[in-house]
Amino acid sequence: MSQPPPVAVYRSNAHLAHAGLVELLAGRQIPCYESPERAVAIERALLGAGGYELREPQAFGLEPILAVHDRTLVDVVEHAWTDALAAGADGSHPLIPDTFKLAAYSGPMEPLALPSAAHLRLGAFCFDTATPMVAGTAAAARAAVDVALSAAHAVVDGAALAYGLCRPPGHHAARAMLGGYCFYNNAAIAAEWLRRDGGFARVAMLDIDYHHGNGTQQLFWERGDVLYCSLHADPARAYPYFSGFASERGAGAGEGLTRNFPLPADTSLDGYADALSEALDAVAAFDPDAPLVVSLGFDTFERDPIGDLALRTADYAEIGRAIGGMGPRTVVLQEGGYAVDAIGANAVAFLGGLREGREAG
Amino acid sequence: MSQPPPVAVYRSNAHLAHAGLVELLAGRQIPCYESPERAVAIERALLGAGGYELREPQAFGLEPILAVHDRTLVDVVEHAWTDALAAGADGSHPLIPDTFKLAAYSGPMEPLALPSAAHLRLGAFCFDTATPMVAGTAAAARAAVDVALSAAHAVVDGAALAYGLCRPPGHHAARAMLGGYCFYNNAAIAAEWLRRDGGFARVAMLDIDYHHGNGTQQLFWERGDVLYCSLHADPARAYPYFSGFASERGAGAGEGLTRNFPLPADTSLDGYADALSEALDAVAAFDPDAPLVVSLGFDTFERDPIGDLALRTADYAEIGRAIGGMGPRTVVLQEGGYAVDAIGANAVAFLGGLREGREAG
Repeated sequence: MSQPPPVAVYRSNAHLAHAGLVELLAGRQIPCYESPERAVAIERALLGAGGYELREPQAFGLEPILAVHDRTLVDVVEHAWTDALAAGADGSHPLIPDTFKLAAYSGPMEPLALPSAAHLRLGAFCFDTATPMVAGTAAAARAAVDVALSAAHAVVDGAALAYGLCRPPGHHAARAMLGGYCFYNNAAIAAEWLRRDGGFARVAMLDIDYHHGNGTQQLFWERGDVLYCSLHADPARAYPYFSGFASERGAGAGEGLTRNFPLPADTSLDGYADALSEALDAVAAFDPDAPLVVSLGFDTFERDPIGDLALRTADYAEIGRAIGGMGPRTVVLQEGGYAVDAIGANAVAFLGGLREGREAG
Repeated sequence: MSQPPPVAVYRSNAHLAHAGLVELLAGRQIPCYESPERAVAIERALLGAGGYELREPQAFGLEPILAVHDRTLVDVVEHAWTDALAAGADGSHPLIPDTFKLAAYSGPMEPLALPSAAHLRLGAFCFDTATPMVAGTAAAARAAVDVALSAAHAVVDGAALAYGLCRPPGHHAARAMLGGYCFYNNAAIAAEWLRRDGGFARVAMLDIDYHHGNGTQQLFWERGDVLYCSLHADPARAYPYFSGFASERGAGAGEGLTRNFPLPADTSLDGYADALSEALDAVAAFDPDAPLVVSLGFDTFERDPIGDLALRTADYAEIGRAIGGMGPRTVVLQEGGYAVDAIGANAVAFLGGLREGREAG
């Protein structure tokens, strides 16, 4: 029996300079959960497990980003930090907005003018106080997109599976909105690239991060060619609060192609597997011709500091097997997960299960 | 010569229990500028100056508030604190939202469901991190409305001038939005009450707070019966950033009846008086039959900790004289002003000037 080829793990060191240090939870400064150590821990665990090969991403430039995000958002990500410095900030504190442009204020007055300086308009684009920006943020966000696109490219080129160790994550980034530790929507950009450049007609996205992927949902809400299925903590109790209810199912050509599975607190593998099974049925019914795009979060872990679900490390192997059993080629892209001491083992379990599921399937 | 009758100063002690202690500026905790001491300092200074009579407000109930604000906003103001306690908060920290429902996320998906708990939906209504809520906030906000309505009522009943020492302030509160230290829009509620209950056809509002009154602007944007003129720091550099540009002039029946006068940093009396003169010309041209409603801020003061204009105490007497010279009866309602050591003297100067202007006019 020959060994299966190693799985490509795309990763970049650009993320190391994106370290916000603090975020705000209900008005209190806390250490930023979304830390460089998360990605480093996953890399180390995969190298230790064997069967994985770390690879640098290719550079895809801004075009695939602009296929998904408004230029106004890209301008804010690219210039907020430098505009703040030009306005006199000393660079010792991450950029966190304090004033937001709410939906409750839109209406007959729109469109309203905005300040020209990117850091002063940040609150029109960033929806929370948990997404600190620093000098290295823009480059890290671009590199995370390159990581995602490199993984997608590898699968289009014939690999059965590729893993993009994206950091910062992406699924909370919408067309003209960032937040939730996310700047550019890595998974959505990969899905759109599969449609436009990969030559595929239908892309299915499965989001198993603890949080609803509000950005991904918005981007494909009216699209008939992209299915978005998300398992997440019920927004009635959990971030991001203002989306992810089961009643949200898409519109127009996308009617029924957004599927949300909100989960109660303390959900363990049994309940999780039921929802996952429903989501995978929806994927099968959609009959995608493109590789499956998985937004992978480990904040569903029982000891995650910001989650309240109850998955254990061994459970991720089961979840990986179920997803791998779907058969199609798979692009796995990292989103959240904040229990740094367990995130590596959880990644090894998930990817190992996924490989087993593929081989069995 | 007989002494003029004392000017009625409506005030309530309910505001004392609304003390947020901290707010967040660009992600950093700072002591809350909008403090009970502000109103106490004004009361003391007016009593010391003589010619003023402190009065308790009448209770007007929720009806005049609901004539201006959505029930959803009132529900959040009334229940956010108690819902947070019911969810396990220990009450030791003010309620400050961390996740916001941005205009950038509205669109085809709307209307989206919201969490039922008021504290979890707060970020759909509150647009900043500078508006801490505590146990006493809801009662203080209601009392500030009663203060404003009592002042309006006194003028309708024949007084030439009444002053409502509102705290919390109001002009940043829009139909379904709170923020900027504001919960209910005291001045807008008074203006609407003058229309509905006062029997007047046209109300002019003059806002001389340092900040644009984004809430007041939204509430009367399409109204032909209410003129809103605001002098404020240019939103290109100053809070609330996303409104108050000169290009915003109202729409529909209200076209031309919103007038914004953005001011550069370091504006002193000369530049200020020019803009004020233009605003007063607009008021005269509108020919209101109702008392003039003035939103009064002293954050235009040269030493204000969050402003960058350059008005001095004596300048407020000049500004008061110019407004008093307009002739109509006047309802003055307190908004901002954060130089606590000077705010009393500034109030004495402004109200004294206004009385002189009336007598000369």
